[in-house]
Amino acid sequence: MTTSKPQEAGPDVRAELARLRDSIDNIDAAVVHMLAERFKCTQQVGHLKAAHHLPPADPSREAHQIARLRSLAESAKLDPAFAEKLLNFIIAEVIRHHERIADDAGTTAADTAG
Amino acid sequence: MTTSKPQEAGPDVRAELARLRDSIDNIDAAVVHMLAERFKCTQQVGHLKAAHHLPPADPSREAHQIARLRSLAESAKLDPAFAEKLLNFIIAEVIRHHERIADDAGTTAADTAG
Repeated sequence: MTTSKPQEAGPDVRAELARLRDSIDNIDAAVVHMLAERFKCTQQVGHLKAAHHLPPADPSREAHQIARLRSLAESAKLDPAFAEKLLNFIIAEVIRHHERIADDAGTTAADTAG
Repeated sequence: MTTSKPQEAGPDVRAELARLRDSIDNIDAAVVHMLAERFKCTQQVGHLKAAHHLPPADPSREAHQIARLRSLAESAKLDPAFAEKLLNFIIAEVIRHHERIADDAGTTAADTAG
């Protein structure tokens, strides 16, 4: 019966867990920096959209992004449903930023439109 | 008044938008592949935890991850609150995976514990 009994978490297991967690921490740092760069791009998109009266959200662009990411996720063996939920989570934040930029530019836009 | 009127989105604006969107798409592909690699690590963590009867969630580890990511986000000029929400979103998915792995290993574990 001893062979089927789960082992306690000894030093080897702790070391393996620490090794994996170091990799996870490195990946997280990379993702944070990629997303910081992504928001720099979307901030520029937001300013362009506000300056040219384009709507903050763009459903056809978003549909295309989601289809592409689902396909990329599948080939990377990442759950496509998770990738889609994640992109929606990020896009929701981006739209909030765009709305804020549009609101900040709002007075001028309303003045010129009125 | 023509100088303050928002410009229509002409070819230059469209080109600039396309340039920014290409960068966003490249970053998204990178993030998807980083996260695929992250889930490979967390799957291994899940198997280790299941084999050694460690709980799927680890609040002290998560608190440490969140504090670290908030600090990284701040130095990268990414909203720390957004980074924290994103990490919680990813961790929730990871815990679901760990629970599934533990459930799959459950019968054996219950047998040996019983």
